[in-house]
Amino acid sequence: MDNFTEHTITDAVLARMATVSDPRLRRVMQSLVAHLHAFVREVELTEEEWFAGIRFLTDTGQACDDLRQEFILLSDTLGVSILVDALNHRMPEGATETTLLGPFYREGAPEMKLGDSIAGTTPGEPTVFSGRVTDPAGRPLPGALIDVWQAAPNGLYDNQDPSHGPMNLRGRFRTDAEGRYWFRTVKPASYPVPTDGPVGRMLRALGRHPYRPGHVHFIVSADGHVPLTTHLFVKGDPYLDSDAVFAVKSSLVVDFARRDAAEEAAAHGVSSPFYAVAYDFGLKPA
Amino acid sequence: MDNFTEHTITDAVLARMATVSDPRLRRVMQSLVAHLHAFVREVELTEEEWFAGIRFLTDTGQACDDLRQEFILLSDTLGVSILVDALNHRMPEGATETTLLGPFYREGAPEMKLGDSIAGTTPGEPTVFSGRVTDPAGRPLPGALIDVWQAAPNGLYDNQDPSHGPMNLRGRFRTDAEGRYWFRTVKPASYPVPTDGPVGRMLRALGRHPYRPGHVHFIVSADGHVPLTTHLFVKGDPYLDSDAVFAVKSSLVVDFARRDAAEEAAAHGVSSPFYAVAYDFGLKPA
Repeated sequence: MDNFTEHTITDAVLARMATVSDPRLRRVMQSLVAHLHAFVREVELTEEEWFAGIRFLTDTGQACDDLRQEFILLSDTLGVSILVDALNHRMPEGATETTLLGPFYREGAPEMKLGDSIAGTTPGEPTVFSGRVTDPAGRPLPGALIDVWQAAPNGLYDNQDPSHGPMNLRGRFRTDAEGRYWFRTVKPASYPVPTDGPVGRMLRALGRHPYRPGHVHFIVSADGHVPLTTHLFVKGDPYLDSDAVFAVKSSLVVDFARRDAAEEAAAHGVSSPFYAVAYDFGLKPA
Repeated sequence: MDNFTEHTITDAVLARMATVSDPRLRRVMQSLVAHLHAFVREVELTEEEWFAGIRFLTDTGQACDDLRQEFILLSDTLGVSILVDALNHRMPEGATETTLLGPFYREGAPEMKLGDSIAGTTPGEPTVFSGRVTDPAGRPLPGALIDVWQAAPNGLYDNQDPSHGPMNLRGRFRTDAEGRYWFRTVKPASYPVPTDGPVGRMLRALGRHPYRPGHVHFIVSADGHVPLTTHLFVKGDPYLDSDAVFAVKSSLVVDFARRDAAEEAAAHGVSSPFYAVAYDFGLKPA
């Protein structure tokens, strides 16, 4: 082979990969090359389009820094991240579905007592979450850890907005002896993914909005079970059908039920009206 | 649709692209998403592999600067660049085949007289190129421009090696009234693509060598014809079968014929022995 033409090139590149000693690496690279070439052939990519792609990928890499991962945002907005998540977390009945971790998780959120608020003095509509952590059969898991984080009603996480105190709207809770949890916060709002970089340019070129429906993030873990990374979404949010990163699953859309009774609010340590969310997390055995 | 699962996500992303107003952009993006998702599904990409890919693409973007384009090198080493080249330059009989431009082209090489040397005082084996520029029917094209560049026998281009004078091993020649050209240089050698970045890491992981067979680059242009970007390769080079960037076409492999006669060398203004390369370029009408 010393004639790499339109007709021979794909087989030549695949043959070059045949010497890869790690069989998994070989399989992944051969599949990648086959699909990448199939894409180029299917659309008969022009040289100008190829170069626009080179520039876009270069800009995306150069937009990344310690605080920003533009390639993950690209993967998210093309539905690749949620596909990888889905393929790697097929869940048995009774286990909560996973969704994306997102870029805003921080380790070391404060451990709090059940019933505490993660929202500090953040203005917003008071909200009380409660429920249980169980195994898929519904047996309670005492001492399970619930690591929760969310954006403020202005759409910004603590590390995006200097007006927040450290680790605001983040907290860790342990379930009680019956596997129950409850905590207070403020109702989350929809917000846009960052649009000032290459991915923002792509979304505008595609006529797509950058919004995510309001949601609260969770990592729930317990001994002997697979840690669960997920969101709970606000039912009725206008962006549930069109989440910019395709992370919505209908089983994760929850009712933020409005409660007006002053005495019920007082019992939860919030003002009235407030929103009540009831959700039981099911963890898959390890 | 508010349930993006393993089974629905690809259709959901494709449907999101249905609103793209530019039909070509819509087609390219839908094909890209379909093939990217097909790759992820085919290998059931793990989360660790996905993140390794994110890191690799990020590193590749960050390795790019004014002098280096690591994403083009990635495209080259996966055979994507030569596939795009082949799809965009299907040639009629009698026209020379194209190959990659490569990263080392510089505009503004000196205009020289036929017979001049582009090699200055560069040590190496003297080589004389000659031939004609014609249309596909073999009719000569007088006044055609031949823009030629190559690496020195040490494998480095002028802009990689400060020991070179400015624009060394680069020149532009005009064909004479019979469409003929001839110039002097030194015989090129095989050399590695840059291996100190992410693409070098990839080649090592794949057990692939980074070498390109020795070659001279050309852009040949004439009024009324499509400019031709190509290489001529040294017949017998050990890397012709395994060019790291898959740019070899058998029609571009030329004999560097050794000549020992002192009087023939003197007639060409070189020392003996020297190498003679005869090649006629065929340009496609515009």
